[in-house]
Amino acid sequence: MAEKPLVGIIIGSDSDLEVMRRAAATLEELQVPYELRLASAHRTPEKVRAYAEEAAPRGIQVLICAAGLAAHLAGTVAAHTDLPVIGVPMAGGVADGLDALLSTVQMPSGVPVGTVAVGRAGATNAALLAARIIALRDEAVRGRLAQYRRKMQDAVEAKDTELGT
Amino acid sequence: MAEKPLVGIIIGSDSDLEVMRRAAATLEELQVPYELRLASAHRTPEKVRAYAEEAAPRGIQVLICAAGLAAHLAGTVAAHTDLPVIGVPMAGGVADGLDALLSTVQMPSGVPVGTVAVGRAGATNAALLAARIIALRDEAVRGRLAQYRRKMQDAVEAKDTELGT
Amino acid sequence: MAEKPLVGIIIGSDSDLEVMRRAAATLEELQVPYELRLASAHRTPEKVRAYAEEAAPRGIQVLICAAGLAAHLAGTVAAHTDLPVIGVPMAGGVADGLDALLSTVQMPSGVPVGTVAVGRAGATNAALLAARIIALRDEAVRGRLAQYRRKMQDAVEAKDTELGT
Amino acid sequence: MAEKPLVGIIIGSDSDLEVMRRAAATLEELQVPYELRLASAHRTPEKVRAYAEEAAPRGIQVLICAAGLAAHLAGTVAAHTDLPVIGVPMAGGVADGLDALLSTVQMPSGVPVGTVAVGRAGATNAALLAARIIALRDEAVRGRLAQYRRKMQDAVEAKDTELGT
Amino acid sequence: MAEKPLVGIIIGSDSDLEVMRRAAATLEELQVPYELRLASAHRTPEKVRAYAEEAAPRGIQVLICAAGLAAHLAGTVAAHTDLPVIGVPMAGGVADGLDALLSTVQMPSGVPVGTVAVGRAGATNAALLAARIIALRDEAVRGRLAQYRRKMQDAVEAKDTELGT
Amino acid sequence: MAEKPLVGIIIGSDSDLEVMRRAAATLEELQVPYELRLASAHRTPEKVRAYAEEAAPRGIQVLICAAGLAAHLAGTVAAHTDLPVIGVPMAGGVADGLDALLSTVQMPSGVPVGTVAVGRAGATNAALLAARIIALRDEAVRGRLAQYRRKMQDAVEAKDTELGT
Amino acid sequence: MAEKPLVGIIIGSDSDLEVMRRAAATLEELQVPYELRLASAHRTPEKVRAYAEEAAPRGIQVLICAAGLAAHLAGTVAAHTDLPVIGVPMAGGVADGLDALLSTVQMPSGVPVGTVAVGRAGATNAALLAARIIALRDEAVRGRLAQYRRKMQDAVEAKDTELGT
Amino acid sequence: MAEKPLVGIIIGSDSDLEVMRRAAATLEELQVPYELRLASAHRTPEKVRAYAEEAAPRGIQVLICAAGLAAHLAGTVAAHTDLPVIGVPMAGGVADGLDALLSTVQMPSGVPVGTVAVGRAGATNAALLAARIIALRDEAVRGRLAQYRRKMQDAVEAKDTELGT
Repeated sequence: MAEKPLVGIIIGSDSDLEVMRRAAATLEELQVPYELRLASAHRTPEKVRAYAEEAAPRGIQVLICAAGLAAHLAGTVAAHTDLPVIGVPMAGGVADGLDALLSTVQMPSGVPVGTVAVGRAGATNAALLAARIIALRDEAVRGRLAQYRRKMQDAVEAKDTELGT
Repeated sequence: MAEKPLVGIIIGSDSDLEVMRRAAATLEELQVPYELRLASAHRTPEKVRAYAEEAAPRGIQVLICAAGLAAHLAGTVAAHTDLPVIGVPMAGGVADGLDALLSTVQMPSGVPVGTVAVGRAGATNAALLAARIIALRDEAVRGRLAQYRRKMQDAVEAKDTELGT
Repeated sequence: MAEKPLVGIIIGSDSDLEVMRRAAATLEELQVPYELRLASAHRTPEKVRAYAEEAAPRGIQVLICAAGLAAHLAGTVAAHTDLPVIGVPMAGGVADGLDALLSTVQMPSGVPVGTVAVGRAGATNAALLAARIIALRDEAVRGRLAQYRRKMQDAVEAKDTELGT
Repeated sequence: MAEKPLVGIIIGSDSDLEVMRRAAATLEELQVPYELRLASAHRTPEKVRAYAEEAAPRGIQVLICAAGLAAHLAGTVAAHTDLPVIGVPMAGGVADGLDALLSTVQMPSGVPVGTVAVGRAGATNAALLAARIIALRDEAVRGRLAQYRRKMQDAVEAKDTELGT
Repeated sequence: MAEKPLVGIIIGSDSDLEVMRRAAATLEELQVPYELRLASAHRTPEKVRAYAEEAAPRGIQVLICAAGLAAHLAGTVAAHTDLPVIGVPMAGGVADGLDALLSTVQMPSGVPVGTVAVGRAGATNAALLAARIIALRDEAVRGRLAQYRRKMQDAVEAKDTELGT
Repeated sequence: MAEKPLVGIIIGSDSDLEVMRRAAATLEELQVPYELRLASAHRTPEKVRAYAEEAAPRGIQVLICAAGLAAHLAGTVAAHTDLPVIGVPMAGGVADGLDALLSTVQMPSGVPVGTVAVGRAGATNAALLAARIIALRDEAVRGRLAQYRRKMQDAVEAKDTELGT
Repeated sequence: MAEKPLVGIIIGSDSDLEVMRRAAATLEELQVPYELRLASAHRTPEKVRAYAEEAAPRGIQVLICAAGLAAHLAGTVAAHTDLPVIGVPMAGGVADGLDALLSTVQMPSGVPVGTVAVGRAGATNAALLAARIIALRDEAVRGRLAQYRRKMQDAVEAKDTELGT
Repeated sequence: MAEKPLVGIIIGSDSDLEVMRRAAATLEELQVPYELRLASAHRTPEKVRAYAEEAAPRGIQVLICAAGLAAHLAGTVAAHTDLPVIGVPMAGGVADGLDALLSTVQMPSGVPVGTVAVGRAGATNAALLAARIIALRDEAVRGRLAQYRRKMQDAVEAKDTELGT
């Protein structure tokens, strides 16, 4: 994306890429500029720290972090910035994502992570939540969110009509 | 609070009040104006709908919703507004809060809820996450968040020193 | 079905359709007139509200609601009607249906949902439970339920005999 | 109660009595005649069978069964009658009620049990669900259910007003 | 088997047959005469009761009961006999066998069921446990159990040797 | 007890003693001679091995093993004897007994442990299951088991009568 | 302790202190010099990093990290050192320690944490595991471990004898 | 391997072999000599005991034990040696590895097992943890661990660069 990114998406492993393409696609649909990066809280802790600390100065407004298993990425990022951080737990652990969900959501008092559902639905919703935050001071994004909602409702109506015939 | 509220805290039952006082206290410490309301997604669905729809026009920027058991409050609110919604799951169900966590966080693709931890830590962090969102365009709140972080670090240092002696 | 429906089956997503065809098939076998509709508690909350409020005036006597993940559909419907509501949890969430089960069954005191098992067995049993309710004032349905039970017992006997040879 | 009972409440152990008094109290408030009995699926299987088989001929219309642990009571009753059966799981097992919930709700295809939440909220809601079924052909009960709902809403409004001051 | 059966294996559904063939095969290997029957606690409660009551008079000494989901079969059988009852939980429910395990093992005080693992390992071990009981007064079976153990140890040694090369 | 013990109860820790007194009391009520011993699979593995190997030669017919946490006691005993082994899981681990239950019941194919419920109900039922095994060749115990069942039924009847007044 | 510490115990919160005193007491009993420090992976990430990086140069040989909830402490430490790291999960989260256990143990491939049980038993065993590592090149510690084991066995024997009387 | 082994890897069943090849491959990459053996805590308890007791005299310094289901192998080994023992839980039980994890990690106070994640990541990390212990007195292994870490970081950087293009 040519524009300066407002949202930073970080994935902890390239196995998370396919799922998180959903977040990217949703931000594109809403025309919210973003960047997509890979960094691991355990394998490259310095890289995560540097990225989190430089995000606000670089103009990033919301951070979306995806990780599975022990899933420390979102928490580590939130420990190094005061930007709002959204965590997307990934499936793959012994409790098939519930473990990553608990690791992501149960932050100690003082360091918040807003967590969404495991996997695909979570990836899309992380992007929408970021867009809702951006929309607080961007009327164009606000308009696109309203449109997104209407399209979603029309899709339900269309399927219901199909059933009824 | 005299000032026009920027954050709306909604609780689904008065049994959630004590825990959610933490969110209120944290917002007060950060001087973010808020309001605290009670409405039930199941017992007063119209009240919830009206509140959610009127929140943005009234100037509210972030909604914090606390509920236990089936825990539909945050999801129902998110279905009726495009503001960012933060869900705080409450303990009390058969899985002692894990149930409310799953009900709150597992929203279908299209309607996001940023979820925090169950109970007290979650209540404080919901307020901090709301403040991080408000701080994106409010330098004073940004400054108070930095101060909050420093106080937190000083407290850890003080306790560590105490141990060492 | 030509006859005025006595049972309304609502699904929250078209991915629930295949499983819920079981409920429809069972009602057909028992000759209980029904209708099948699609509406989402989160994507089309107004549609759900309108449907629930108009169900009783339209002559519907029992509502069967199927949803997965946060699974708010049955609860939202029960909040807008005094008809008996039966919830069918769908698999697909992080806890593979257990999450939807807990979201559906753990209604707060005052707004009841009678919940059945996750998935296919639940879909069939939701229809049978609806039929048991209808049968309270419909002798023909009562007779067909008795016949259904006998067929079920004969099937077990036939299989046991097969084993024994 | 002097009147012929329409609802039969059965408890599997006298330790369930205190919780199930809620179901009884709710039926009394709605003026639905009921009876309360103790019988164990494992300790007195013949008693359970006889009770279930005689319920319909005696004019009972809905059965509410409360049990914990392996929680076979509702299922055993449903196996011996075609009346609608509502199961109330009790806490106390190794999974603190979740076990009884799964034992109660996961009936095989063909023998339905409509299950409500574990414990107190479930006991109240079992009574309300029974009343919703009775109300299908009893206008007086229907009126009392509407009144119950209004009282519930007024209570929420009153508490919200209290908060706001 | 021509000989009078000492062990009765009962399955709750023909979908349990493949797994329970393991129990049968193990009893055959140990030359313990058995019979294999199908009866459902919910669909054919009378059949289960009759079978359980007649087992001891017919010379059966141990009963093995396999069931999934609500898994009431072993408990129902144990309620109608004083013979030792072994329960084999089957996978297939929302908690993939853990539900059936809890339904089977959590019998109320007074009516015991000795439970083994879910599925294949459980089926084999149910047969071995039955054989250990029979062996208390049958020296030939005792000898075959000792032989079974030695074969098992030899198999481990053979595989270890293979690794080491 | 003066008589030669037929049942050996082994506890893994003295914290299990209070619960397992139930097993002892039940065996006393049924006049089945037993002994109660303490040995730990992890702290005194040799003692456990020796006890298990000597049990059959000493005339013991059934072994009851109680342990919590990793709960290896029953499995270790079953690995060193061909007597029937009954495992009683104890609460106290992170999953409050469910962990001990899974450790006890999930034996690999070839080494069976008949498992009962966690805690008190399990302790009583372990004794009753042992007595059912002993009763296969002891008519007096068989008679006492029948009497135990009648007392249990009478107690339910008495409580039901009390309710009805 | 006057001697240069070989083991570093780090706790993430002062609420973990009481439990972790067990680890300290065990190391004292075995005369393994240690230090006890407080640092939070989320509140003071720089302090944790610095401590982990300086541990090896300072002569520390094993690190024991105790944390609850999201429980990132052990993982963060292991990301900044090549010393062996032992994690002790603390109770207190929504899944009462199971969450902290999964957060601690499920490290991604490449960054190992050896995890022990939740709470007190885990604290003692973390110290014993550290001592087993130290003992590989310290004969005196090896001797004290053997003595510790004998005392443990004697305690079991003493309690068993007490039972038998 | 020609060299005298420093690490002993024991698997409880040949079905664990494929996963544990990862541990072996990692030790080879770090040039830490090891041996791989098969022994079952339940099927060949004597073999396990002998192996554990002879490990230290034979020069083994760390033991890695892999087992699923009841997963007693690591605990049994730790009961017979004072060497550091690392447990690798295997998937396959009713709770898909979570059961084996709890069986392995929840050792009673006094007998420690350092546990790693279930399956492949756990197998690799068990080897790395063993190498971190060996490295305490082997500078060459220490150097190879540092190199391993750098390779891991370079791999993350390479993938991140790929994303960014």
